Amino acid sequence: MSVDLHPRVKVLAFDTFGTVTDWFTGISGAVGAIAPEVDAAAFAKKWRRRYSPILARVESGELPWRRLDDLQTETLHDVASLFALTLDDDQARTLVRAWRTIPAWPDAVEGLQLLKRDHIVCALSNGTVALLTDMARYNAFPWDVIGGSDLWRHYKPARETYCGLADLLEVEPAEVMMVATHQSDLDAARSFGLRTAFVERPDEWGGDEKDDSGSPDNDFHATDLLDLARQLSPSVTGPSR
Amino acid sequence: MSVDLHPRVKVLAFDTFGTVTDWFTGISGAVGAIAPEVDAAAFAKKWRRRYSPILARVESGELPWRRLDDLQTETLHDVASLFALTLDDDQARTLVRAWRTIPAWPDAVEGLQLLKRDHIVCALSNGTVALLTDMARYNAFPWDVIGGSDLWRHYKPARETYCGLADLLEVEPAEVMMVATHQSDLDAARSFGLRTAFVERPDEWGGDEKDDSGSPDNDFHATDLLDLARQLSPSVTGPSR
Repeated sequence: MSVDLHPRVKVLAFDTFGTVTDWFTGISGAVGAIAPEVDAAAFAKKWRRRYSPILARVESGELPWRRLDDLQTETLHDVASLFALTLDDDQARTLVRAWRTIPAWPDAVEGLQLLKRDHIVCALSNGTVALLTDMARYNAFPWDVIGGSDLWRHYKPARETYCGLADLLEVEPAEVMMVATHQSDLDAARSFGLRTAFVERPDEWGGDEKDDSGSPDNDFHATDLLDLARQLSPSVTGPSR
Repeated sequence: MSVDLHPRVKVLAFDTFGTVTDWFTGISGAVGAIAPEVDAAAFAKKWRRRYSPILARVESGELPWRRLDDLQTETLHDVASLFALTLDDDQARTLVRAWRTIPAWPDAVEGLQLLKRDHIVCALSNGTVALLTDMARYNAFPWDVIGGSDLWRHYKPARETYCGLADLLEVEPAEVMMVATHQSDLDAARSFGLRTAFVERPDEWGGDEKDDSGSPDNDFHATDLLDLARQLSPSVTGPSR
């Protein structure tokens, strides 16, 4: 099946937080630098768990559309209170902006460079264009296009994001493949006609708690982006395969 | 003056047709390949002269917003009729899409790479995101962000394009510098609070007809993008300066 569909995939759309970057290391490091007295790993994980629910409240219409930084500021203060931590505005801003400088997974830059040879490579993230631009410059991600949530004023898994990217690139949804380490993202993409590739990131949650191993319904399943590049474009790695 | 303002410029926004790419060579070459019987240079220039007027008709409200390719298809047929040329749909599509593969000026890629070290580098063009993505991949332009007209459904010199890019990048207009070889583009940018840099492209019209040499009101005036990089970041070229 993969072989038949491959020629039609022109665009690869990448989730960023978790799929190309290691938010756990970045955010727990930033928390530890500001509040050495708290359990930074636990703080980072609690904050990350507040992420999807508040985006869902925006998509349900309960909250008006706001940029991710504003939503993350709100959830940050909620989580800080759980840790009996009071953050001033500068500290909160530093932590919210730490999502712009979370480190790439070790394979991400080379993987994207390989995948870019035959595909348009895009970020498709709930971060804003400005956030993703900072992240890309920090990590040297070679995006062709940065699909930030502010382009559509919608958050994944809303249809407007996946189909909005296809429309922006003047292709059909079936010509776009979503690449993510979160099956919920891929399930939504698939429901709107996109192809899907799951990327394993077993350390996304700092070595434990990751309970997402991908569905057999995905078009591809890769151990990392180098593996995905090998599967999509066997020629790029030469005769060793 | 330039020295004082430089630290505040975070984003460089580049016009594309003429400023980073040589539309005359690209389009006259494409016309010559399809219709060797016509004067390809004259055809390319006539077509290019139809560009700004039809965009202005969109901005005035006379025409509804349409993607640049659709507008260029309309002007192409008008110009073809002047040359007694009838184009079928495939030929028209080939010529309209030739704007996606016009070649870079020889200094453009290295200049953008140098300028990218200290600035966010963006296309800010009347092309669509998809068009500019194809152009970037064809020429290896290292854009951080592609500001296509379809993001705002407006064409330069409309305010929505210049200020829309600043908003998208979460900066003030004064933190953005428009870089172009067309003074009208820079005058508009300046009127909305952006900084401006003029780049000489004496061969834009195939060696003649260029009657735009830039205003002394611009913040910078450069012979090409390497010169602009030297002026903005003297350190990048080392002690030879």
